[in-house]
Amino acid sequence: MNRIAELFGIKYPIIQGGMVWCSGWRLASAVSNAGGLGLLGAGSMYPEVLREHIRKCKAATDKPFGVNLPLMYPNVEAIIEIIIEEKVPVVFTSAGNPKTWTSYLKEKGILVAHVVSSSKFAIKCQEAGVDAVVAEGFEAGGHNGREETTTLCLIPAVRRVTTLPLIAAGGIGTGAAIAAVTALGADGVQIGTRFALAQEGSAHENFKQYCLNLQEGDTRLLLKKLAPTRLIKGAFTSQVEEAESRGATPDELRELVGKGRAKKGIFEGNLTEGELEIGQVASLFREIEPVQQIMQEIMTSDNEAKDSHINVRRNSKKYVSLMLNTNKSN
Amino acid sequence: MNRIAELFGIKYPIIQGGMVWCSGWRLASAVSNAGGLGLLGAGSMYPEVLREHIRKCKAATDKPFGVNLPLMYPNVEAIIEIIIEEKVPVVFTSAGNPKTWTSYLKEKGILVAHVVSSSKFAIKCQEAGVDAVVAEGFEAGGHNGREETTTLCLIPAVRRVTTLPLIAAGGIGTGAAIAAVTALGADGVQIGTRFALAQEGSAHENFKQYCLNLQEGDTRLLLKKLAPTRLIKGAFTSQVEEAESRGATPDELRELVGKGRAKKGIFEGNLTEGELEIGQVASLFREIEPVQQIMQEIMTSDNEAKDSHINVRRNSKKYVSLMLNTNKSN
Repeated sequence: MNRIAELFGIKYPIIQGGMVWCSGWRLASAVSNAGGLGLLGAGSMYPEVLREHIRKCKAATDKPFGVNLPLMYPNVEAIIEIIIEEKVPVVFTSAGNPKTWTSYLKEKGILVAHVVSSSKFAIKCQEAGVDAVVAEGFEAGGHNGREETTTLCLIPAVRRVTTLPLIAAGGIGTGAAIAAVTALGADGVQIGTRFALAQEGSAHENFKQYCLNLQEGDTRLLLKKLAPTRLIKGAFTSQVEEAESRGATPDELRELVGKGRAKKGIFEGNLTEGELEIGQVASLFREIEPVQQIMQEIMTSDNEAKDSHINVRRNSKKYVSLMLNTNKSN
Repeated sequence: MNRIAELFGIKYPIIQGGMVWCSGWRLASAVSNAGGLGLLGAGSMYPEVLREHIRKCKAATDKPFGVNLPLMYPNVEAIIEIIIEEKVPVVFTSAGNPKTWTSYLKEKGILVAHVVSSSKFAIKCQEAGVDAVVAEGFEAGGHNGREETTTLCLIPAVRRVTTLPLIAAGGIGTGAAIAAVTALGADGVQIGTRFALAQEGSAHENFKQYCLNLQEGDTRLLLKKLAPTRLIKGAFTSQVEEAESRGATPDELRELVGKGRAKKGIFEGNLTEGELEIGQVASLFREIEPVQQIMQEIMTSDNEAKDSHINVRRNSKKYVSLMLNTNKSN
């Protein structure tokens, strides 16, 4: 049995990343119903909005689901009380110290995973007593680590320092990529971008269509003087690049970004004024698909066979089955 | 039979990347003797120095080897005539248009591979008639693509657009990483960093030891206004970061870099004034090893078993054997 699937009580060790303005109850419940673990993205929800999403998610699935909670979030205490009251079984924390909340959540019977971008922080996760660690590489969309370590380099580094169940994130959207990170030592994966562009994702149709036409190199890690964030090329991103090129200060950048840009871009579909965030792997996808179909494709790797000139399909199936059955801890 | 091994007439589909100041005849011949394909790095050699290295390499191995040639190199025509005169069987070109020299080299019976950082340029390679394409990701050391696409995202993208034998590069130094890129559709790998730090590499001992103590996040892609280059933290890199942070112009950066910095850092071991280049994956390695031992470890993946808490060794072996035997073109 796979460690991640066993830990969360799910069929496939596939987590849907909690993403601002993309992952409400429709997406999370669809992923959980399809055998993965859906996460509500609390980073873009007021506490009472989150409560509503949790309740709708519980009504839409009898499978486990969770909440992703950025620990720098201003309403973190209110959110945590709601999570406990509503008996959410799983919390993924990020952007903060795993020591702050892990033991409290675990006392309440909640499973805790924490997102890191380095093996140094993976060690802190183990010390804090989390149940699993998510290691996210440079290619991931949105907020990102300062180390800029790619998934290919990060996963083996984290694998060496911890015995925790390890979830790879960043650049993963196909069965072939799951096979790849399994070979590097991951026990499961977190998929953001591909699920953000699913039919059930709450992002605006304009945003999804824009992402589904991206080429390689159309995203860039910017805003490093504030918090490194992977943005998609476009009008607002050009302003950021221009400002950074001339040496803009953190204060100037903060003013340029202002408030509510991510909502405007991702949720309201304003492609010129909005802040647009997606992972590098977006350029591999061209269609809005329902979650069930995505999960099916990933688990059978048929997607690879469609476009590829070589027969990776058969190998990928072997790799995925290896992950599911033999990648046990010692 | 593996396509890359067959193409170059080598035992393992493992190419040693041609690297400035690191890959002379000692390293290239050692890699070729160990069953891979060694490449002389012409980017840091005057034409007559290269001729000497070619002759010494021929004396040291009866196996195939090649030359890596950055096409922006000022002496490119002289270098090509030497390669032809000395009957070097393989040339890897980079940093330029594959159309310029490929047909001329092929007329002379030389096998040509070209290094790209996007699927767009992989298509140009196929049009130019190269024998193989090297797709190199963001995590690679030294000069790097503008797209910043990581190996995990780049390999499947390139695999979709070309039937050419595909060599993955960037972030690869272990059997597990070979397994990973094989799952993504690569036919072979180019390994730079790990071979740069081998006993036979021509880099200065100070440089090698410094690299073998790096942590994740200790390299950074800088000099994007000139040519994006992955540099290691240190005195000179801090100057570059400071200049870029305040918005230095390309001319200011050019003056700051000056001439001969890479030689000073890598070859002469001046860690304060020199320009130091290595890939992200350096942080996984801690010892100067002979090439034969590196190759042995990679092909049996024993290195993974040593430090890892999970049993990836057995899986990695399976993946590597899959690459060697079953990843055929259609």
